[in-house]
Amino acid sequence: MNVSLISIGDELLIGKTINTNASWLGEHLSAIGFDISCVETISDSREAIMNSLTRLVDESKVVIVTGGLGPTNDDITKHILCEFFHTELVYNQQAYDGMARYVLARNQEINENNVTQAQFPKSARLIPSPCGTASGMWFQQGQSVVISLPGVPSEMKCMMTESVIPWLREMYELPAIVHRHINVAGIAESKLAEIIADWEAALPPQIHLAYLPSFGIVKLRMTCKATDTLTAHTLIKEQEEKLLPLIAQYVWGYDDETIEEVVGNLLVQYGETVSTAESCTGGNISAKLTRISGSSAYYWGSVISYDNSVKIRELQVSPTDIENYGVVSEAVVQTMASQVRRKIGTTYGVATSGIAGPTGGSEEKPVGTVWIAVASEKNVIAKRFQFGQEREENVAKAAFSALRMLQLLILQEHRN
Amino acid sequence: MNVSLISIGDELLIGKTINTNASWLGEHLSAIGFDISCVETISDSREAIMNSLTRLVDESKVVIVTGGLGPTNDDITKHILCEFFHTELVYNQQAYDGMARYVLARNQEINENNVTQAQFPKSARLIPSPCGTASGMWFQQGQSVVISLPGVPSEMKCMMTESVIPWLREMYELPAIVHRHINVAGIAESKLAEIIADWEAALPPQIHLAYLPSFGIVKLRMTCKATDTLTAHTLIKEQEEKLLPLIAQYVWGYDDETIEEVVGNLLVQYGETVSTAESCTGGNISAKLTRISGSSAYYWGSVISYDNSVKIRELQVSPTDIENYGVVSEAVVQTMASQVRRKIGTTYGVATSGIAGPTGGSEEKPVGTVWIAVASEKNVIAKRFQFGQEREENVAKAAFSALRMLQLLILQEHRN
Repeated sequence: MNVSLISIGDELLIGKTINTNASWLGEHLSAIGFDISCVETISDSREAIMNSLTRLVDESKVVIVTGGLGPTNDDITKHILCEFFHTELVYNQQAYDGMARYVLARNQEINENNVTQAQFPKSARLIPSPCGTASGMWFQQGQSVVISLPGVPSEMKCMMTESVIPWLREMYELPAIVHRHINVAGIAESKLAEIIADWEAALPPQIHLAYLPSFGIVKLRMTCKATDTLTAHTLIKEQEEKLLPLIAQYVWGYDDETIEEVVGNLLVQYGETVSTAESCTGGNISAKLTRISGSSAYYWGSVISYDNSVKIRELQVSPTDIENYGVVSEAVVQTMASQVRRKIGTTYGVATSGIAGPTGGSEEKPVGTVWIAVASEKNVIAKRFQFGQEREENVAKAAFSALRMLQLLILQEHRN
Repeated sequence: MNVSLISIGDELLIGKTINTNASWLGEHLSAIGFDISCVETISDSREAIMNSLTRLVDESKVVIVTGGLGPTNDDITKHILCEFFHTELVYNQQAYDGMARYVLARNQEINENNVTQAQFPKSARLIPSPCGTASGMWFQQGQSVVISLPGVPSEMKCMMTESVIPWLREMYELPAIVHRHINVAGIAESKLAEIIADWEAALPPQIHLAYLPSFGIVKLRMTCKATDTLTAHTLIKEQEEKLLPLIAQYVWGYDDETIEEVVGNLLVQYGETVSTAESCTGGNISAKLTRISGSSAYYWGSVISYDNSVKIRELQVSPTDIENYGVVSEAVVQTMASQVRRKIGTTYGVATSGIAGPTGGSEEKPVGTVWIAVASEKNVIAKRFQFGQEREENVAKAAFSALRMLQLLILQEHRN
């Protein structure tokens, strides 16, 4: 069962607004078994809207149009849909009441622009909008549907969740779709493909595999389409059990988990705590950890030691070590990680020192060289990484790698 | 001059990845005078790619395709483009060298999948990729161009900036478009609109004004389209000189400047330094400051004092103050800001303490309450903010506001 999306709005085309509506719709429609054929982002013009509608209504069972339903003049979707479906706008009491309820609840006055929102296509079914002033439209011709929703994300999501998704489920018999992500790191995409080539070749036809790489990690996504959810889950589980032994050492999480969640869950599980001593990551590990609500249970604090004087004074890094090995060195990050956990009084310490770039590189230690250490009471583990040329990317990769090393250390401590 | 964009990738359709490439391209192409006709997001399938290409090459002078150029099996764009342009893949030394340079610089091995990346369409011009392994392709037929770039945002942006945009400028005569952003904060969008209403109504027809609000700041963008750049610049300058006196107290920067750049430039100018003591912002101010290459000249370090014990032990916050006023209070942030500048030895100190949410709020101090202080040798200035319900948004707004307060303090110190 396929669906096409049309996103209307010049602000999307010129990049002023990122099209998050399309990704939200894609996620929620594929979750209930639709195939998303395409997303077309077009301008607020009659010609563009008519062209896309004509083509896509032919190709897809369901077309969802977002945007162009507000009260101002440049919002023309409603008129064009009337033209397309050979119907006309008439006064609609339900549309008026919905708009009025919303406006009055906010102690605002109903103005002329609002009143035009009560004009509604004669042949369309009304989609109520509890979160805004514009009603949505549901045009049906036989087994095909065109749905028009406002472009404001909160209004669109409200209507989808409360009306459109339930109505689509009633109307169509949808297959069960299950996605599973295995999140790996520490291996290049091409190398990973080599290791799992035989497994991939033997996948049953119901399962589709995709590689989703970003900033040094790769997410392997299995998608299974079956007649029912249980069958899909079983098929995925079977394949996952064959896959995991091949790549166990690289797997750090599943599905939408982030590395800071994985580490946070482990720390909560063991009642342990962490602090960081960051140089090249400049607070990014700390910022990542504290993105999680409730992280105050296990994350206590950090010394961001960007300047060498801070490393020496606050973290007892030895000036001789800096002189002998450089500030981007095993000796220095080991001291930083051990000292910060002692200073802050946490179970673990994490430290980074590197050359984020674009300047500061040398032949021996080019831009992208980062030393990372993790420390517990019994262990200090340090590792050298060679990332790329891009400052932001290097920092992101270093922050991820540091948390990945921490995950491995926690697991190791509790295996022993 | 119009351009169409094709974004390839199932992960975009099912909403696992948000199509930020399209908005980046839209922004940068419209900035040099292109009109963006449409963005089509389609699946990794031969049929979908062929259909979109066939239609859009007809409609637009320039078509830019992103995605489907990686080394693995599900990346098929290259083959389909060969079919479309009736050409074939041949070994290309430049493509091989580019890939090899990138792989070897990262101490990785060249594998079979990488080697296939040296296969390149015979009739295409190669777009070098300094930031990845896949080369881009430039197909030209008369005055029309089809460009194919990788879907990884950093690689795509690299190629656009270094090759595609300069080549497009050479090839087409584009109108002069000048944008000017005036970046303001500390005033609501509707209030701002009121203050500048008369000025806005009197703008000449060549200048278009847009309000771009995000996370507590508003960027006012003037866009001027003219026959030549000098005329456009002159028109914009005239209007800017009329605008600035109306809103001077709210202006913190211009164009793409970030608040961390503005503050960084001031610190460099005066040879001064800064450190931070962060609680609710959890390292985000530090992370922002260190995003700037060269920030080590003025940013020395931070104490991220998430846990109260760290505030007391490392920043001499008085337990009595915490008991009397709470940890989110004027007294506590004042101490934090003053102590961190002493401890790290910097000209200025910046401190935050607040309730980022979603938990931890009370009637007196609801979620979104944040105290921020900035300190110099002579001054300590503290301010209470009331942000919203969203954790991430609250942290971002607090980090911005702290740096804005620092900007004002630096200016104040040097006015006296």
